[in-house]
Amino acid sequence: MLIANALLADGTKRHIDVAGGRIAALLPASASLPARDDILDVAGGLLLPPLVDGHIHLDKTLLGLPWIPNQAAGNRVADRIEAERKVRAARTVPEAETGSNLVRQVVASGTLHMRSHVDIDNQLGLRNLHEVLKIRERFQGLVTIEIVAFPQSGILRSPGTAELLDAAVAEGADLVGGLDPVGIDGDLDGHLDAVFGIAEQRGVGVDIHLHDGGDGGIAQLLAIAERTIATGLAGRVAVSHAFALGSVDAEKAARTAGVLAKAGVAIMSHGPGGAPIPPLALLHQHGVKVFGGSDNIRDAWSPFGNGDMLERAMMIGYRANFRHDHELQFAFEMVTDAAARVLGIEAYGIAVGAAADFVIVDAGSVAEAVATRPRRKLVIKSGRVVAKDGVFVA
Amino acid sequence: MLIANALLADGTKRHIDVAGGRIAALLPASASLPARDDILDVAGGLLLPPLVDGHIHLDKTLLGLPWIPNQAAGNRVADRIEAERKVRAARTVPEAETGSNLVRQVVASGTLHMRSHVDIDNQLGLRNLHEVLKIRERFQGLVTIEIVAFPQSGILRSPGTAELLDAAVAEGADLVGGLDPVGIDGDLDGHLDAVFGIAEQRGVGVDIHLHDGGDGGIAQLLAIAERTIATGLAGRVAVSHAFALGSVDAEKAARTAGVLAKAGVAIMSHGPGGAPIPPLALLHQHGVKVFGGSDNIRDAWSPFGNGDMLERAMMIGYRANFRHDHELQFAFEMVTDAAARVLGIEAYGIAVGAAADFVIVDAGSVAEAVATRPRRKLVIKSGRVVAKDGVFVA
Repeated sequence: MLIANALLADGTKRHIDVAGGRIAALLPASASLPARDDILDVAGGLLLPPLVDGHIHLDKTLLGLPWIPNQAAGNRVADRIEAERKVRAARTVPEAETGSNLVRQVVASGTLHMRSHVDIDNQLGLRNLHEVLKIRERFQGLVTIEIVAFPQSGILRSPGTAELLDAAVAEGADLVGGLDPVGIDGDLDGHLDAVFGIAEQRGVGVDIHLHDGGDGGIAQLLAIAERTIATGLAGRVAVSHAFALGSVDAEKAARTAGVLAKAGVAIMSHGPGGAPIPPLALLHQHGVKVFGGSDNIRDAWSPFGNGDMLERAMMIGYRANFRHDHELQFAFEMVTDAAARVLGIEAYGIAVGAAADFVIVDAGSVAEAVATRPRRKLVIKSGRVVAKDGVFVA
Repeated sequence: MLIANALLADGTKRHIDVAGGRIAALLPASASLPARDDILDVAGGLLLPPLVDGHIHLDKTLLGLPWIPNQAAGNRVADRIEAERKVRAARTVPEAETGSNLVRQVVASGTLHMRSHVDIDNQLGLRNLHEVLKIRERFQGLVTIEIVAFPQSGILRSPGTAELLDAAVAEGADLVGGLDPVGIDGDLDGHLDAVFGIAEQRGVGVDIHLHDGGDGGIAQLLAIAERTIATGLAGRVAVSHAFALGSVDAEKAARTAGVLAKAGVAIMSHGPGGAPIPPLALLHQHGVKVFGGSDNIRDAWSPFGNGDMLERAMMIGYRANFRHDHELQFAFEMVTDAAARVLGIEAYGIAVGAAADFVIVDAGSVAEAVATRPRRKLVIKSGRVVAKDGVFVA
């Protein structure tokens, strides 16, 4: 396959020679096209690397089911956990099916790599893990699905969960998760003992949901950084949301950023709507890896979301008050290169030797693509078209 | 024309008989269809009233031009005013053309009524007003365009502007606007003297942009309420943005809401990304009319926005932390009924005698339509299809 006349993010126009599912050569578009019958002329379309969703919940989505109204009794995380239990109990379609609906939808929007948190608690056991493992199996070769064993009901307040998290890693989860050590479990050390204990013993990374705001949230971030250093897990730990960084003054946020950077703790943001957004540019300036994710997509937590990571980059940019092209590019990097690095995706990007995975859109630049979120003309995986004009065809 | 098998927002299914551009009858969908050759079967599609954009800038958009990067030197309103002057000076395509591009795009997304602010200052004079009057003329009979004479560069700091605002009303503007009396003009009374003086003398309404936050912004809201009562303009005054209401505590916001409700001052919010959102539910509970608008759409102020008011309702809901169906319905009302009332749109809504203006989408409820923002299958104006599958065909 030879993709002709692609506009790259750096503004150059190239022909891209693909062989064995990899980029074999990046030729200047001025080069004359060889006589081949496998040329795909994209006519100046913007060719991007595949989108990466650094935070999705494949087991939670209700996508494809008739509309289910939100049932949370209040606005606390604990209220939403309760509401989800009811929705889960009333489910008749297994998570592997709704999650597969979501995978097809996100592939159609250009996502080929994702990190999925998977609920584990003492009611669910490893049920949802088994469902998401089925999804991973089903879409093997098309999408990368990294799995976080996520204690959605807490660890200490849901006795037996620590053992289940450990078992989940043994059965295929790639990372161990956590959830508001203070806000949910009320025991910072107890929670982190469990999470980092499993991570250290099993040799896996960590990704902790932290909604707790203010100074209390900052204290938990600092404790996570300390544990990361103590366990030698630098570069393999992330905190998702970290609203606290957006709810304290810039000086405190900067000090915390310095600690996180040194410890090798990355921060995931989805551009929250009703909570403070961490100061992304400041974090980046201090050396913290920041990456993007969808979070909830039409589930018991939120009616919003569709898994489109270009739209997510727009949301992140909108919430971060980004307006300049370099800022929109930064939001784009959060859902491409930065997320790929956090997930450890190999051979990622537009370079000779990298995987021949592409998203092609009508836009003159990355900034324009983020702002306008055009329909994906083509999504290509290993040199094969897997979605066309926003429709999954793999 | 008879629209068959429409799902209404109240959950009922109806046939809608249209005659003379009005709704002649709302028949139960169980009624047998007459033998007519003008039946449009929408097969259970959700039929909504047309969307209303309570705050658009038809003269600012750069829609249809090649991408122009944001050039503001900083993040203050004053920086953006300066940046816009440069973009404006470099323009080669008149505002009537880019604004018409935007009108076609918003009609395709179901908007048939809008309030456009139009920049007026002592450099521009009435140039932009004349451009937007051309747009209004061009799309007469298709869309309602209410015009606000908007002092984008301030009134006192741009000498001669007060006279121009007055002249603008004489030439066809429907309301007089204002802009941060303290933050931009540094003279609360001087600014409001000019705005309310023109409004009172010309018998027109008022819509003031207020970005100023905190207690300073609240003081300006209270002053606007006082002026509204003093000039007998209750019900004809709006404040756009009013970020201050989202930046003070709930008690102060509630007290201010009580004053605004009593004075008949409405609040417009676009669900701001980088500024605090006013507490919409609290305002509504206190009797304040709250309505929605797009604000900037791909212009010198913002790279974001596309004029889709279903997407705007989603943004408002996302920022307001709305998750329940009744909350999503409230966001929808902000961009339909509530905005129509503020704009004084006659014969609006789905009722016998109302205009036969409809938007039809694939969704099972208003809440689902807001969350998923499906492509508009049909947009109908006075019983005539004006957009189909997201494409303008009028």
